[in-house]
Amino acid sequence: MPTISDIKVQDVRFPTSLELDGSDAVNVDPDYSAAYVVVEADNGEAGHGLVFSCGRGNEVIVRAIESYGELLAGRDLDELLSNMGAASKLLVHDSQMRWLGPEKGVSHMAAGAVVNALWDIAARRAEKPLWRYLAELSPEKLVEAIDFTHISDALTPEEALAILQEGQAGKEERIRALEEEGYPAYTTSPGWLGYSDEKVVRLSKEAVGNGFDLIKLKVGGDLESDRRRLRIVREAVGEDIKVAIDANQRWDVPEAIDWLQQLSEFNPWWIEEATSTDDVLGHATIRKAVAPMKVATGEAVHNRIIFKQLLQAQAIDVLQIDSTRVAGVNENLANLLLAKKFGVPVCPHAGGVGLCELVQHFSFFDYAAVSGSLHNRYIEYVDHLHEHFAEPVVIKNARYQAPKAPGNGAEMHTESRARWTFPDGQGWQEVAGRAAVTRN
Amino acid sequence: MPTISDIKVQDVRFPTSLELDGSDAVNVDPDYSAAYVVVEADNGEAGHGLVFSCGRGNEVIVRAIESYGELLAGRDLDELLSNMGAASKLLVHDSQMRWLGPEKGVSHMAAGAVVNALWDIAARRAEKPLWRYLAELSPEKLVEAIDFTHISDALTPEEALAILQEGQAGKEERIRALEEEGYPAYTTSPGWLGYSDEKVVRLSKEAVGNGFDLIKLKVGGDLESDRRRLRIVREAVGEDIKVAIDANQRWDVPEAIDWLQQLSEFNPWWIEEATSTDDVLGHATIRKAVAPMKVATGEAVHNRIIFKQLLQAQAIDVLQIDSTRVAGVNENLANLLLAKKFGVPVCPHAGGVGLCELVQHFSFFDYAAVSGSLHNRYIEYVDHLHEHFAEPVVIKNARYQAPKAPGNGAEMHTESRARWTFPDGQGWQEVAGRAAVTRN
Repeated sequence: MPTISDIKVQDVRFPTSLELDGSDAVNVDPDYSAAYVVVEADNGEAGHGLVFSCGRGNEVIVRAIESYGELLAGRDLDELLSNMGAASKLLVHDSQMRWLGPEKGVSHMAAGAVVNALWDIAARRAEKPLWRYLAELSPEKLVEAIDFTHISDALTPEEALAILQEGQAGKEERIRALEEEGYPAYTTSPGWLGYSDEKVVRLSKEAVGNGFDLIKLKVGGDLESDRRRLRIVREAVGEDIKVAIDANQRWDVPEAIDWLQQLSEFNPWWIEEATSTDDVLGHATIRKAVAPMKVATGEAVHNRIIFKQLLQAQAIDVLQIDSTRVAGVNENLANLLLAKKFGVPVCPHAGGVGLCELVQHFSFFDYAAVSGSLHNRYIEYVDHLHEHFAEPVVIKNARYQAPKAPGNGAEMHTESRARWTFPDGQGWQEVAGRAAVTRN
Repeated sequence: MPTISDIKVQDVRFPTSLELDGSDAVNVDPDYSAAYVVVEADNGEAGHGLVFSCGRGNEVIVRAIESYGELLAGRDLDELLSNMGAASKLLVHDSQMRWLGPEKGVSHMAAGAVVNALWDIAARRAEKPLWRYLAELSPEKLVEAIDFTHISDALTPEEALAILQEGQAGKEERIRALEEEGYPAYTTSPGWLGYSDEKVVRLSKEAVGNGFDLIKLKVGGDLESDRRRLRIVREAVGEDIKVAIDANQRWDVPEAIDWLQQLSEFNPWWIEEATSTDDVLGHATIRKAVAPMKVATGEAVHNRIIFKQLLQAQAIDVLQIDSTRVAGVNENLANLLLAKKFGVPVCPHAGGVGLCELVQHFSFFDYAAVSGSLHNRYIEYVDHLHEHFAEPVVIKNARYQAPKAPGNGAEMHTESRARWTFPDGQGWQEVAGRAAVTRN
């Protein structure tokens, strides 16, 4: 029997603050980073996972992944893979580690990276990309993977099973359609706060020229500047293109409502992270006040329990899962099923480093086997750092093309990881002292 | 000018799992631990802080404290202390570290320990225990320390100032009363799940004999066992003693309601952590269903934004702050003021290691300068591990006696820290392989 023999963790960072790619009203100078894990078995099998972060602090996630790795070392790999629900609970509900969250923040993200590495091994064994591996698992195996703790008042295992059984009808056809046509994308690349007006307009037009019908701008830094940018983008792209806006939790509730009322004339399609994503009631209040503008959130929602409440409180129109914020595939299965139960479309958060590569699998799976719908559904796309991945995402006609390589999409080139290992990699020697991550 | 010259962090753990002290339905085998920090300045001043945890994972908090420490190294101590609100934001809102939470879990607790160490220095400079130092700060300085981000819809700086100004009336008299008579305590010592019936009854009677009129039992492991324990404790202590119960998040919402209806005949005074403390709406649902039983929560509430919602949703009757879960003194000032605004009493969580020593300061301050009331207010007391602290809490007539030593109460004896440093301290050599923390 193969046994978990090693957990290798790397602190990989990219000096993105040098370019102001990724700058918004809260994250003003991110150096996109990955706490990267490879879970190895003594038979040579290996699975990859990562947690995205913004630079400083990546070392803390690295330490947490090492600690969760210790809980797996020496265990029987086949047994872990035979019941992924139990494997996940070993980590997430460890009786002592649980206090670190519970189920939130550094510890939860770290557990998720390890869980995702196990799913990577499972999908590689099956020689399928994760989305297709999930889509072809039985409804029973999928339900077994889900932790219903603290969400059963909104979604029972029986309801989850019924949703997944319903999702079997037409599944093969949808899988074929996904493999031929891909899945709709939207782009945030034009809209970073650090960009000049000229650059925002140029990139917005390019995006529309490339077939995108939804683009996103960052807001929340300065009201007059937001109005100006929205106006010039509207003028550049016309009324038929959807323009979403994203405040990255910059506002308190009353401020959000005031500010959004000043932007409503530009007809934003959704407002994302209008306030703290801990604030379920605040989101519900904002949604009532700014309708018909849609309310979106999720990239910082730390677990299924907050998503459950956002849905129960009718606080959101768009649920944005993230691939490395929650405890891995298992918890995102719960999030997709909650969204389906409440009839809210899922538009995943991506960008950062590796988030596009990872999160696309959930939308492909969702269409194949859960919601069966593409209506008002898009995966976020940001066009940087893909070159470091073994299978970079492919966008064609503004659609994510179906990933084909076996696994979960997390695998980063060995050379990239070595070059950008912080602080000793060659890349960091070359930019010494210039990136924000080295500020103190 | 004095400058922050060193941040010393230690991984201190006690093998409490050997005794089943501290066992409950979720935390079955805790080894009470502290990620311990001393912030040192080059003029010899030093401040202490800690984060409590349950054993495994303490090393992750240690790493996070080191990272926050790096943000402070080399800074002007006087400048930091002159505006504690700004000092706290330096850490909590660091543009890159923020992603690790935001404001939750490992990173938030670690930031809190460092913030608390700064308050420790400030109180030592003033030669006052923290509670008295806070009580004698001006309302303006206290408001300056508070981060109103994401709570201003429930509490504005102006409202906070008005509450604190009102709290000035009679303050000196209340300070004198606190110094003479102390502050009411309740005890959890009889009620751990790992204890035999005989031990629970004996300790309950002892507690009542010692003057406690509120004791707490752990529940949620097994319904019949809970009913039996509540019955025998009721029989032992009579109807006039308040008996609170604590499920440590063990239940989902429907299960909580069913279970509590089976326990209601024993007239529990409050039910604590009936479900996930992330679940604001769930707590509100439970509270409606089990009234007049009170609903309490807070030891795992990760920030002021969740407390705000628990109050807005009328989800709790008792707000339980914790001294090391949130971002330090500053955030607990916000929590006390939110509780006052909404008219909900604060009954702090304590126990663990050092939590009694730390959290008592907030209740003493609250009575002196915020709520001015002792009605239905108690500080939790658990009688272990106090001997390791420079100024152990003193309970007399079931009341916490006012701490007198300058500082925040976190200082642990140097010898205790050395002996129980994990894994190399002498104490750990002596219990090698026996405590749960070493399980893998």
